Amino acid sequence: MQNILSGLRVIEGSAFVAAPSGGMTLAQLGADVIRFDPIGGGIDYRRWPVNGDNQSLYWHSLNKGKRSIAVDIRRPEGQEILSRLITLPGDDCGMFLTNFPAKGWLSYDRLKELREDLIYMNLTGDRHGKSALDYTVNCKVGFPSITGVGKAGEVPPLNNPLPAWDVITGQQIALGLLAAERHRSRTGKGQLVKIALADVALATLGNLGYIAEAMINDADREAIGNDIFGTYGHDFGCSDGERVMVVGVSPNQWQAIVAVTGTENQIQELQARMGLDFRKEGDRYLGRAEITAILQPWFNQRPYSQVSTEMDNAGVCWGKYQTIKETVDTDRDCSTDNPLFQLVDQPGIGEYLMPDHPLRFTGMDRDPVRRAPKLGEHTEEILAQTLGLSSAEIGKLFDDKIVASSDQ
Amino acid sequence: MQNILSGLRVIEGSAFVAAPSGGMTLAQLGADVIRFDPIGGGIDYRRWPVNGDNQSLYWHSLNKGKRSIAVDIRRPEGQEILSRLITLPGDDCGMFLTNFPAKGWLSYDRLKELREDLIYMNLTGDRHGKSALDYTVNCKVGFPSITGVGKAGEVPPLNNPLPAWDVITGQQIALGLLAAERHRSRTGKGQLVKIALADVALATLGNLGYIAEAMINDADREAIGNDIFGTYGHDFGCSDGERVMVVGVSPNQWQAIVAVTGTENQIQELQARMGLDFRKEGDRYLGRAEITAILQPWFNQRPYSQVSTEMDNAGVCWGKYQTIKETVDTDRDCSTDNPLFQLVDQPGIGEYLMPDHPLRFTGMDRDPVRRAPKLGEHTEEILAQTLGLSSAEIGKLFDDKIVASSDQ
Repeated sequence: MQNILSGLRVIEGSAFVAAPSGGMTLAQLGADVIRFDPIGGGIDYRRWPVNGDNQSLYWHSLNKGKRSIAVDIRRPEGQEILSRLITLPGDDCGMFLTNFPAKGWLSYDRLKELREDLIYMNLTGDRHGKSALDYTVNCKVGFPSITGVGKAGEVPPLNNPLPAWDVITGQQIALGLLAAERHRSRTGKGQLVKIALADVALATLGNLGYIAEAMINDADREAIGNDIFGTYGHDFGCSDGERVMVVGVSPNQWQAIVAVTGTENQIQELQARMGLDFRKEGDRYLGRAEITAILQPWFNQRPYSQVSTEMDNAGVCWGKYQTIKETVDTDRDCSTDNPLFQLVDQPGIGEYLMPDHPLRFTGMDRDPVRRAPKLGEHTEEILAQTLGLSSAEIGKLFDDKIVASSDQ
Repeated sequence: MQNILSGLRVIEGSAFVAAPSGGMTLAQLGADVIRFDPIGGGIDYRRWPVNGDNQSLYWHSLNKGKRSIAVDIRRPEGQEILSRLITLPGDDCGMFLTNFPAKGWLSYDRLKELREDLIYMNLTGDRHGKSALDYTVNCKVGFPSITGVGKAGEVPPLNNPLPAWDVITGQQIALGLLAAERHRSRTGKGQLVKIALADVALATLGNLGYIAEAMINDADREAIGNDIFGTYGHDFGCSDGERVMVVGVSPNQWQAIVAVTGTENQIQELQARMGLDFRKEGDRYLGRAEITAILQPWFNQRPYSQVSTEMDNAGVCWGKYQTIKETVDTDRDCSTDNPLFQLVDQPGIGEYLMPDHPLRFTGMDRDPVRRAPKLGEHTEEILAQTLGLSSAEIGKLFDDKIVASSDQ
């Protein structure tokens, strides 16, 4: 972790990917992030993948670096503790992040009564307040219709296994909290900040030019498999069955592909024949099928080791297709050779490679990556040190089963 | 746009998606973001999709709200202007964002000589400084190997058309600049901040539990098509050919699916037969094929209008598969009915729907969405008002073709 946000405290009531990853990001950058959960764990506490003991690798991967307090959130005493925690005084407190329903004791209006300048980040599924998940949002904005090969609407839509909208939203949540905190530090004013998962996808559709393409060009995209729209990119099999993705977006990248495959003459001839100028990305796209046919033999006739070495020497921009396990088992960038990663022991699960945040603040020390908390690991510490309750008060809360520690 | 970051100024030397979208995000939140480009445009200025006049819908979608200055960056006079702009004094200046090679006049060390507390955000392809693009990073971390249906490594890998890593990185760049600015405002210290596209993907692989799964469970994921790992989700065709994605992640969502399809008895029977408890997400995943077979007829026998109405009434979490054009043409959430969007005229292109940032700061006014600049539209204004050059100095720069405006 890196302590660039040290002194900042965020209370989080969350589940699944987007909201927890937003809080985790702030924790990785040094904020004190306290996630509260019901005693026994919330809705995402046992999500797959799990290990042999039904410990969730998902939950523990998404909640690194946080402190955990376990509270019976259905009882008024539990709600009161959390309301106090969310609205603690001080410049670096009073920030709340949630994707729970923002109503009742957890509504902005109620919490604002306890702290006028509260910053309240509320994630919803869509702008109407309806539930939505990455997979129901992604089909709505059309990416499954252009995954694979064929005309949009005529090929079976194919979902993306990466919950990209969740991950993007998580980073935007962290960004929004920082922006709101900057504003509060200058004006004294807190606020409710809203973000809807569906809006994140719709905005991205606009930012990447898809909306303009549909409205201005009246065009729909086709599913073009492993080609890349508007430029040259394609995948090739090597003689030993390994597979690489090769991209020629910049003129240098394109020239490197032609040079390493020794296809200058054929490419020249193709340009002349098709009346295209492959110095232009768009023309490379128009000639992509013919270009691929010319390049293909070079890859097919060489083993991966030779293909990769020669491409590196020539400055080609490329990547190897790997399964996830292959990446974890064999890729040096996915190992402690990469300062992004450390091997950390997660109690109840074991030691595995945990990433820091990919932002590298070179002016800060890089402290050890922090594992996820055990559920309720910091309940007592938070009640005593953060809320300032007495031992007697804390004892009663435990006795009354309003709170629990990780041993219970 | 929303003015929550007003007073902040970021200079950007960038191309493609990740870096420009990071700058655009800050502009959407009220920062003054000045993008510089070579006269005539940088490497991404004509990227597809383009309109009939070869104006890039891509470039204009990714650079909304910025100011543009066009400079001959190969000549020392041009480099001097940009160095001064990047290192202008003042609390709200001295922030630079680039994915250009950080060397020579554009290196951190050289610019730091002009402003000691400069914040310099440098995006690279991978941690070794090699070029990488979304598509070469994505194949490396394994998602194409689990897109579609089949055993990872045995099915042809399929790329994701959404450049998710670029979009995620763009938000992280904005986040990193804000975090560094917060730190500088408290300590007086600027710094070099690095981020590598490949590290963003690798970190996400860890955050979502994939690395733990490979290391702890020694398991590789399979490509499961439109199922969702570890829970219940599947796509169904309606009788009129429309298609929906239906998800039962929470117990409520799951019960709503069973209720609306009237399959309680069959599902009960299936649980008993398979020895599973479908209140548990993991068990729903194990029984997914059999569950789908039970649910399927209900969808297949009804037109979309009926399926959608009944699902909404029952509280099912679902989404419709749409092509991108269908979304733009028919979805109310992708229209000015959604306050996220406004119709804005982009000179040289026409009027289309432009999104604000999906973060909604309810304490701030929502000002009109700002279009992208014309290339060099603000050259004169920046030289005069921001850098404080005299008319004579500016005139000479234009005469010597060191700078250009949008009319040239």
